[in-house]
Amino acid sequence: MSHTWLDVPADHPFGIATLPYGVFSAGGPEQRRVGVRIGDQVLDVSATARATGADWADAWNRPTLNDFLALGRSAWTSAREWLVELLGNEAHRSEVEPHLVPLGDVTLHLPIDVADYVDFYASEQHATNVGSIFRPDSAALTPNWKHLPIGYHGRSGTVVVSGTDIVRPTGQRKAPSDAAPTFGPSIRLDIETELGYVVGGSTTVGSRVSVDEASNHLFGVTLFNDWSARDIQAWEYVPLGPFLGKSFASSIGAWVVPMEALAAARVPLPTQDPEPLPYLRGASEASYGLDLRFEVRLNDTVIARPPYKELYWSPAQMLAHMTVNGASLRPGDLFASGTISGNEKDQRGSLLELTWNGKEPITLSDGSTRGFLEDGDTVTITAWAPGPEGATIGLGEVTGTIRSAV
Amino acid sequence: MSHTWLDVPADHPFGIATLPYGVFSAGGPEQRRVGVRIGDQVLDVSATARATGADWADAWNRPTLNDFLALGRSAWTSAREWLVELLGNEAHRSEVEPHLVPLGDVTLHLPIDVADYVDFYASEQHATNVGSIFRPDSAALTPNWKHLPIGYHGRSGTVVVSGTDIVRPTGQRKAPSDAAPTFGPSIRLDIETELGYVVGGSTTVGSRVSVDEASNHLFGVTLFNDWSARDIQAWEYVPLGPFLGKSFASSIGAWVVPMEALAAARVPLPTQDPEPLPYLRGASEASYGLDLRFEVRLNDTVIARPPYKELYWSPAQMLAHMTVNGASLRPGDLFASGTISGNEKDQRGSLLELTWNGKEPITLSDGSTRGFLEDGDTVTITAWAPGPEGATIGLGEVTGTIRSAV
Repeated sequence: MSHTWLDVPADHPFGIATLPYGVFSAGGPEQRRVGVRIGDQVLDVSATARATGADWADAWNRPTLNDFLALGRSAWTSAREWLVELLGNEAHRSEVEPHLVPLGDVTLHLPIDVADYVDFYASEQHATNVGSIFRPDSAALTPNWKHLPIGYHGRSGTVVVSGTDIVRPTGQRKAPSDAAPTFGPSIRLDIETELGYVVGGSTTVGSRVSVDEASNHLFGVTLFNDWSARDIQAWEYVPLGPFLGKSFASSIGAWVVPMEALAAARVPLPTQDPEPLPYLRGASEASYGLDLRFEVRLNDTVIARPPYKELYWSPAQMLAHMTVNGASLRPGDLFASGTISGNEKDQRGSLLELTWNGKEPITLSDGSTRGFLEDGDTVTITAWAPGPEGATIGLGEVTGTIRSAV
Repeated sequence: MSHTWLDVPADHPFGIATLPYGVFSAGGPEQRRVGVRIGDQVLDVSATARATGADWADAWNRPTLNDFLALGRSAWTSAREWLVELLGNEAHRSEVEPHLVPLGDVTLHLPIDVADYVDFYASEQHATNVGSIFRPDSAALTPNWKHLPIGYHGRSGTVVVSGTDIVRPTGQRKAPSDAAPTFGPSIRLDIETELGYVVGGSTTVGSRVSVDEASNHLFGVTLFNDWSARDIQAWEYVPLGPFLGKSFASSIGAWVVPMEALAAARVPLPTQDPEPLPYLRGASEASYGLDLRFEVRLNDTVIARPPYKELYWSPAQMLAHMTVNGASLRPGDLFASGTISGNEKDQRGSLLELTWNGKEPITLSDGSTRGFLEDGDTVTITAWAPGPEGATIGLGEVTGTIRSAV
C-alpha cells in the first residue's frame, strides 16, 4: 500500500510511508490526545479507533504517547498495519474523514513524558572536534571512545517541544586565563544537532537488552536539539560531566517517526575498528546505520547539512550498552545520538565546531556574523530519509528561538 | 507538643519529633498509600484525614508521595501541625487508633516516583580522596570544586527502595596496564553513603530558585546508597562523567523525614573559602549544615561513621546551583549529597576510600576481609540527628544485599 487515497502528493514527506505519531489538541480547552500526521492533516487516532472498534483507543486517548509505548513492539506493528489499511484503502474513507483535522487547526504538544534521558556521543567527527577544542593538549578521542558508546544522563524535566522559546541560561564560567570564575548569561550559547530515539516497553532492574533484542524497544525517532552553554560546560564538566551547561533545555520534535518508516534508509555502519566486545556486536540487520540527511538553519541561512549515516555507533548498540549493567527501561525513555557531524566543515552539527569555538565566525545571509547564538536567533533543524519506492520520509522539524536571560 | 499519647518511649527515634512519610500497603493486594511512622506503627494518614474531614486525604491516597509533594510548603507545614495535634493530644485517640497499623504488618514501597535525580559531590574529604585515587598525577580537587557544587544527573528509573536486592552489574573495564578492555561482572562493587533530598513544588523552565527560596522546595531527607562499580566507572567516565558505573541501581530509604524535623540539627557550614559567588550565598539561616550521624554496616560489622556536618555545600546551595541556569523543578525530583566522608579513616563513606581502592582491605567481625563487596554481602546505612528537647530523630535505614551477576 504505497499510496493513500487522501489528496497528498506522492512526494510529500508525510505520505503513507511516514505516519509519525504526536500529541495534539484542537479548539480551546480540548484534551490532548495522540494523533498521526498524514500530509498536512492530523488523524485523531483514538477517535478513529473508538469509532471502528479497533484496539489502542484508550492508549491513544492520553496526553502523551507513553501508554501506547508501554504496549510494546507487536502492538506498534499492528497499529501501523491498521493505519496503512485505513489510509491506503479508499473503502475506509467514511471511517477516516470525520477524524481528520487540518494541521493548521491543532496545537502540538510534548509527545512523551520523558522517563530517563541519555545523551550519547556517537559521532567520531564530533568527538574529535570537541576533544581538539576542549582538550588541545591530549589526544582528541579518549582511549575508551572506540570501545563503547560514551553517554551520560541529562535532565528529563527540561525536554521541551519544538517551538518553545529558549531562555538564555545564566551561570558560572572561567576561561583558563581568568583569575576567578565570573557569573552571568552564557556568552557561548550553542546548538547540538541530534537524533532522539524514543523507547517503549519495559524491562526489570537487573536485566539486559541485547543488540539483537533492541528492535523490541526502539519505537521511533524524533529530531533533537541539545542546546548547550559552552562557557558554563567548559568550567563545570571535569570530573563528573556536563550538568548546567546542558540542563536548561533540550528541544524535541513534535513528531515521532516509527522505526518501520526508516527501513529503506538503513545502511551499513562505518567499519568499527577495533572490533567491539561481543555484547556490542549482533546480527548485521540489528545493528545498522541510517541515511538521514539533516539541515540546520540559523534564521534564514542554512549553516550545516550533517550526515547521520556517518555515525559510528548504531542505535541498537547504544541501547545494548545502556542496559548491559542491568539498568531497566521504561516507556518514554529517550536517548539521543549526540551531535551529528560529518567530515566536511559544512557538515558540523554545532556552532562550537562550525566556528571553531567562535574563532572563525560564520556569515549569515543578512551579512551578520555569528560565533555563537544571539538573543532573537531562531534555529530550525529538519531532516528526511529515503523511503520505499522513491518516497521521502519526513522527520519534521525542531525549532526554537533564543530569549534573553532573566 | 513534645510527647505523644501513644505508647512510644521518649528516646524512640520515631517519636512525635520525627514523623516521616512513606508509602505502604498492608494485607494482600491492598492499594499502596501514604503512611506516617510513629514509634513502631504506621498511621494510615489518608484514611485518618478522610475520617476527620482534614485536607490532603486525596493527595495521600496515592501510590507515591508525589501528589503531596506537589502541594508545596504551606500544605506540608499545615499537615505536620495536624499530625502533631492528632498524635500529641490524647483527645484524638479515637480518631487515630483505628488507622494505626503495626510496622510488622506492612510492606514499604518506593516513596516517590523519582522525576529527575541529581547526584552532587559535596564532601571535600570524599572529593579529595577520590581525586587522589583516580587522578594521582593531578591536584586532588579540580579547580572548580570550591566555586560550585559539582553534580551530574543519574538514572531515575533504577532508584529502588531499601531492602531491594542489588544485582552485581556487568560491563567493560580496563586498567591502565591492560592492553584492551575486558568484559564481565564488576570486581570493584562499592557503596556510597549519602543523604537524599526530596524536592516538592514545581517551577517553570527558565526560572531560578535562590538560596533563600530553597526551603519552599526542600521537603525532606532520606538515606541514600549510590551503589558504584568502580572498575566500570574508571574506564567510562572521561570525558562525560559516570554512567553505567552508577546507573544499575541506587537505593533510597523507605522513610522521608521532613526538613522541619531537622531544625534542631542545624549547624553552621564549614568556612567556605574562597567566598562563593553571590548566587550561592544567602541568609545564614537558609544555608546551613546538618548534624546527622551516619553508621555504615557491612554484614555484622560497623565499617564507618561518616559525619554529615562536615559537608562543604548546603542543600540550599545545591538547589540554587541546580536551577541557576533556568532548569525547572518537578515534584519528586531527588538530589543527593554525594558520598559523605570525614577526616578520619573510619569516617569514609565508600569502600574505595576505606580500602584505598582495595589496597588496604578492611577486616570484618567474622575475620574475613573486603576490598570491595562480595556476592551475598549486605550493606545497611542508618543515621540519626539530635532533635528538640533531647529527642532523637531517626532517619531509618537503607539496606541492600548483593546478588550475583546474571
